[in-house]
Amino acid sequence: MSERNIRVEPIDRQAVEDQEVEIVERKGIGHPDSICDGVAEAVAGALAREYLDRVGEVLHFNTDETQLVAGEAAPAFGGGEVVDPIYLLIVGRATKRYEGQTIPAETIALRAAREYLSETIPNLEVGEEIVVDVKLGEGSGDLQEVFGEDEVSVPMANDTSYGVGHAPLTETERIIQDAEARLNGEFADENPYLGQDVKLMGKREGDHIDVTVAAAMVDEHVPDMDAYADAVESVREFVEQVAGEHTDRTVDVHVNTADDYEEGSIYLTVTGTSAEQGDDGSVGRGNRANGLITPNRSMSMEATSGKNPVNHIGKIYNLLSTEIAEQVVDDVDDIRDLRVRLLSQIGRPIDQPHVADVHVVTEDGVELGDVQDEIEAIVDEELASVTDITRRVIDGELSTF
Amino acid sequence: MSERNIRVEPIDRQAVEDQEVEIVERKGIGHPDSICDGVAEAVAGALAREYLDRVGEVLHFNTDETQLVAGEAAPAFGGGEVVDPIYLLIVGRATKRYEGQTIPAETIALRAAREYLSETIPNLEVGEEIVVDVKLGEGSGDLQEVFGEDEVSVPMANDTSYGVGHAPLTETERIIQDAEARLNGEFADENPYLGQDVKLMGKREGDHIDVTVAAAMVDEHVPDMDAYADAVESVREFVEQVAGEHTDRTVDVHVNTADDYEEGSIYLTVTGTSAEQGDDGSVGRGNRANGLITPNRSMSMEATSGKNPVNHIGKIYNLLSTEIAEQVVDDVDDIRDLRVRLLSQIGRPIDQPHVADVHVVTEDGVELGDVQDEIEAIVDEELASVTDITRRVIDGELSTF
Amino acid sequence: MSERNIRVEPIDRQAVEDQEVEIVERKGIGHPDSICDGVAEAVAGALAREYLDRVGEVLHFNTDETQLVAGEAAPAFGGGEVVDPIYLLIVGRATKRYEGQTIPAETIALRAAREYLSETIPNLEVGEEIVVDVKLGEGSGDLQEVFGEDEVSVPMANDTSYGVGHAPLTETERIIQDAEARLNGEFADENPYLGQDVKLMGKREGDHIDVTVAAAMVDEHVPDMDAYADAVESVREFVEQVAGEHTDRTVDVHVNTADDYEEGSIYLTVTGTSAEQGDDGSVGRGNRANGLITPNRSMSMEATSGKNPVNHIGKIYNLLSTEIAEQVVDDVDDIRDLRVRLLSQIGRPIDQPHVADVHVVTEDGVELGDVQDEIEAIVDEELASVTDITRRVIDGELSTF
Amino acid sequence: MSERNIRVEPIDRQAVEDQEVEIVERKGIGHPDSICDGVAEAVAGALAREYLDRVGEVLHFNTDETQLVAGEAAPAFGGGEVVDPIYLLIVGRATKRYEGQTIPAETIALRAAREYLSETIPNLEVGEEIVVDVKLGEGSGDLQEVFGEDEVSVPMANDTSYGVGHAPLTETERIIQDAEARLNGEFADENPYLGQDVKLMGKREGDHIDVTVAAAMVDEHVPDMDAYADAVESVREFVEQVAGEHTDRTVDVHVNTADDYEEGSIYLTVTGTSAEQGDDGSVGRGNRANGLITPNRSMSMEATSGKNPVNHIGKIYNLLSTEIAEQVVDDVDDIRDLRVRLLSQIGRPIDQPHVADVHVVTEDGVELGDVQDEIEAIVDEELASVTDITRRVIDGELSTF
Repeated sequence: MSERNIRVEPIDRQAVEDQEVEIVERKGIGHPDSICDGVAEAVAGALAREYLDRVGEVLHFNTDETQLVAGEAAPAFGGGEVVDPIYLLIVGRATKRYEGQTIPAETIALRAAREYLSETIPNLEVGEEIVVDVKLGEGSGDLQEVFGEDEVSVPMANDTSYGVGHAPLTETERIIQDAEARLNGEFADENPYLGQDVKLMGKREGDHIDVTVAAAMVDEHVPDMDAYADAVESVREFVEQVAGEHTDRTVDVHVNTADDYEEGSIYLTVTGTSAEQGDDGSVGRGNRANGLITPNRSMSMEATSGKNPVNHIGKIYNLLSTEIAEQVVDDVDDIRDLRVRLLSQIGRPIDQPHVADVHVVTEDGVELGDVQDEIEAIVDEELASVTDITRRVIDGELSTF
Repeated sequence: MSERNIRVEPIDRQAVEDQEVEIVERKGIGHPDSICDGVAEAVAGALAREYLDRVGEVLHFNTDETQLVAGEAAPAFGGGEVVDPIYLLIVGRATKRYEGQTIPAETIALRAAREYLSETIPNLEVGEEIVVDVKLGEGSGDLQEVFGEDEVSVPMANDTSYGVGHAPLTETERIIQDAEARLNGEFADENPYLGQDVKLMGKREGDHIDVTVAAAMVDEHVPDMDAYADAVESVREFVEQVAGEHTDRTVDVHVNTADDYEEGSIYLTVTGTSAEQGDDGSVGRGNRANGLITPNRSMSMEATSGKNPVNHIGKIYNLLSTEIAEQVVDDVDDIRDLRVRLLSQIGRPIDQPHVADVHVVTEDGVELGDVQDEIEAIVDEELASVTDITRRVIDGELSTF
Repeated sequence: MSERNIRVEPIDRQAVEDQEVEIVERKGIGHPDSICDGVAEAVAGALAREYLDRVGEVLHFNTDETQLVAGEAAPAFGGGEVVDPIYLLIVGRATKRYEGQTIPAETIALRAAREYLSETIPNLEVGEEIVVDVKLGEGSGDLQEVFGEDEVSVPMANDTSYGVGHAPLTETERIIQDAEARLNGEFADENPYLGQDVKLMGKREGDHIDVTVAAAMVDEHVPDMDAYADAVESVREFVEQVAGEHTDRTVDVHVNTADDYEEGSIYLTVTGTSAEQGDDGSVGRGNRANGLITPNRSMSMEATSGKNPVNHIGKIYNLLSTEIAEQVVDDVDDIRDLRVRLLSQIGRPIDQPHVADVHVVTEDGVELGDVQDEIEAIVDEELASVTDITRRVIDGELSTF
Repeated sequence: MSERNIRVEPIDRQAVEDQEVEIVERKGIGHPDSICDGVAEAVAGALAREYLDRVGEVLHFNTDETQLVAGEAAPAFGGGEVVDPIYLLIVGRATKRYEGQTIPAETIALRAAREYLSETIPNLEVGEEIVVDVKLGEGSGDLQEVFGEDEVSVPMANDTSYGVGHAPLTETERIIQDAEARLNGEFADENPYLGQDVKLMGKREGDHIDVTVAAAMVDEHVPDMDAYADAVESVREFVEQVAGEHTDRTVDVHVNTADDYEEGSIYLTVTGTSAEQGDDGSVGRGNRANGLITPNRSMSMEATSGKNPVNHIGKIYNLLSTEIAEQVVDDVDDIRDLRVRLLSQIGRPIDQPHVADVHVVTEDGVELGDVQDEIEAIVDEELASVTDITRRVIDGELSTF
């Protein structure tokens, strides 16, 4: 029997899948907010790895405040140009001096940002179409003795905070998540006209799902208006097909609905992201830790990207609660909806949350009592290995947005 | 009978007041995130009024991305100093040229920010302890013919977005809200040692409420450790008293629990905000439009502060849904909990949301049917006067964070 | 007999007063380059005084790199406005940590800049029409033990550098110098339409002098084109009168010659400086240490403003050589032209220059031998009291541009 | 007979070669001031070429204000690292909109800067060890009809300004110039330990020349202190040998004299430039247009680098007067020293200077009258082809610093 304060209770609402109206959104990896999330997390990972490498421990840092100031662009069929560059300011704190060593935190941050951007938004010329600047204040310099190379102790919570996770995803959620991933994966690989800035919103009313896609097209690969129209239609068909794999409900897909072909007002970009023209971005304003924005579910306001994965309890508990929810649903049958909330208490070890409450909707005919022990055991086990989350974040294995 | 798509339904969960665990948070006006919200909204209001004044219409702008980079300070009993200034970057778009006129958007923004900061954080010397910079790209220059001085037409939604509002507030919510307001009001007036950066978290488990307060003390007014301890105790007593006015539940108040007097590690500041030392901030990362962070309720991720109040549907619907919820609860008896969600559809007039759904928990013994028509009528009426929201935002009458 | 290496020799050219063509220029205190010089020097003085005050010694700093990025303005008769603010970046190094004390170098710099700007360019609203930012790297932290409160030792030269000074000023030089001083003094006091950005160029060919003045007018005090024309004419008459006090040569004064009244192209400003519209500036690009640009004389490239007055040899020697030249001409009769050059050698005390060479043109009928000893004695004495220069710079008594 | 106002007169001083004391300085291409000069000029050239390419004319721009804020580095034998990146701000004006076209001036500037830096300071990782930012205001947009692709008209002077040039170089000048060029050329090619930041000062007293070299060594190629000492000695020997090719006077070469091996205080860098650690830089603070700082000669304060080569008279006249001086000395025998000054007058064609005065020292036994006509003819011819200077600057054929 666990000594942890774990509660498993029936949820006090319907499963989201059964609610009448459901809204789900995802900002793709090329959206300005996601760019900031991605850079912040890339910088955090690079710092953590570098600290481990140099001093054997993850020192104090927090880089969860990257700000993007949009540029100005003049896209054109066949290839336009960025007129005023995007400005990206990496903001945060990092330990720069430790036991006589200097640690080049800003240089590390710039390198990580550059590599991340080059890889993620390949049409964006870093240093030319985007200026990357950095302001990292000196961190406290306190040793975080909690996460060294050799031995790992469980750190104390640095704050009263909480995290929340859900599983399983609803059909609409899976459609949005999968469609973005595959648009930015297999589809973009074959169709270079699709930029990384795709934003999807799913709205389900009863058994009908509308998926609205805003997809930035890359002008270099779009010779004319017909090609543009074809590109839009291809995206529509692709998303429709992806949706069909996840639901039997009726689905309508709408792509770039604000276009006005007569006026020549279409969603054409030079770089594949709307950051090039008027859309600013910052960390924590877009997707939650599970990659979605889900107003039907409780969400944490906490920005997960860029935070220190060793002791920032908001980050850890958001990732861990999602992890727990998925693990439970994987291992336990007959769960229709499940929410895990972890609430920390300052000064307690983070594997001992003040309360871990799990709210469950079981399938018809199944009693909560039938699965309660099994769930509790999984939660207990996952909490016991909380530092795995830290390790996986540092290794870049967990997505935070 | 309204032609608007208004649905009034029972909520699919318990009233929050009846849930076992409830968490509520508020970042006070001096918190770095709130500073950004406040500056962004002050800038937006100033721009809107200036546009009205100069061209008779509110032109395109969006200033919802202010970023604060923390400074470094050396507080000391009796008065320390800011060592490295805070850096505040106002980011956004604004129309700078319109029909032959130039509009000094950046100058307006700087003035508004300076005035807001001087008034809100009086111990912070603007231009010396905080550098305020600005990067406003050129807005589209399209005339927003929707909100002129003389006639007001209802604009079309610019996006598919939604807003959500709740009423009535639970006891815990009212405690947190009221305590922050009065700490930063009457209490600070009499006790200048209290800084504006107070952060309150309420956690209710059953019938016990814990209120945790982090209160930045202003060193100039704190001569020594004893005075500090007294200040902390005064805050504690004051919050306890405020709480008592809102609940019969048991309440424990904890102030600056991370202090360690032995180590001299206390929450002392020069300026009254943690932005002076290591705490960065940005817009939309803190309080929701109703001034609270309420994980027990559905929340919108949309940043409300700094957005254009004429046509930014996320801003308008967040404010309007809160307004509607409060109006319903004011006018209709026997409502225990109520959530209003407004979902827009691109291209439809904003007084005609795609759906306005109202979920209600009535008091025991009251049927939803008894109040349904009354609620619908209020919603209908509020939607009809949606442009009032815009007017009140421009006049600075509505708080957005 | 001095042990210093002082050489007094005949100059190898005519006195400048006797040369056929002479050019003299001065950028007034409101010129963008002068603004940078002035801010840099104000910051340096403030830092030096603060160091003395706090630790009893002037610590390492160097702030000679302020950069001004021009704004954009829309001046108009009766009062226009700044559309895009000027951006001023204070750049340099300063000691921020010393023997356990933190010294708020950036805060000090911002305050000094703000005060200097408010006083010098009163029509420029600091924080609204100009953003003042700062990037001061950490200085070396080495104690400069050379200039304490109580005892003053003579520091060693930090570099191989040189300074150069001249006296007496020629008529043309005196006209340019005096005209700028009095335009920005008595004239502006009575005529608020004159901005601080006046630039004067004198060109003498034989016995005719042309003085060309570019004078920024302040729109608030200029109701219309006639008033503007009157203002220009007043400036012209004033400068003509000043010139007449210094010379019997013929003088033509030309004011704002690039104006085109037909086209409405005139030199009207909101703030009194061209920095508001397109004219960038930086330190060391304008006037030399004696306040003039004199191509007929040898000049040092060294920026004098903003440098540390204790040990920066370029600054000290430029000021000291000017001081010496003036002292000699005050005390010794019959000197028509005189140039003092001081060349340092790294590691030698700065009162022992590698060579101090003085080149002299005596009046007709006077032999150099007649005055040589007297000159040498003055040079020797001035060198002996080199630290007076430092003291006077710190006290703000010496102008550096 | 020319209609130009050309005067050829005896100089009113000795030839510099014959003066008793001579000082000459050159900041090598990797010095922070030279980096700024180089970037400013690279940006100017790129803009000019791009304007020609796009609209057939060089539009208004001026980019002569690049500012470099030094970083912080931790060099170490065998390879250290940059801890805080250098910050480089490109400042100026450029036409961004012209006849319906947008011209991506900032993107062009960033690209040019990046390419220049990568080529010139190869050990400096752009975007990682140096952040390049840009603030280019909108230029006036006036068409500069003066310099098109097809026809070239002679522009009017935009200012009253002057340029000055000298020839032939003295021995000391040639030593300094050649030594820097070859250190950064053949020597560095074979000895990668030598960084680009070499600063040379020559001081001649009578027939003895001291050359003081400050040479930044690149740590990656310097394994230990012995290797460092060898590197210093190699530089010394190389400069000694170069000097021997230019003079029969005695020469002493001193390299890195401020080093203190005992203290481990040596001139070791990561990137080959002192900009990495504490040395700020800006345009126009270093070398004059002929690549040297020559206090024995009259110099122009005008920054040549970064200015528009079509109509910026300060730039053109500095380059042209140097060109003329060199041409005269090439073609006319028996000239020992020669100074060319060109003075513009606003509104006159730039091939018609207000006055072109040439001051000459002939060899003993040669009368000025013997060469006067020849000189005048060359000056006349060079003035007639003034637009060649513009063309060659645009093509990057003329060095400006």
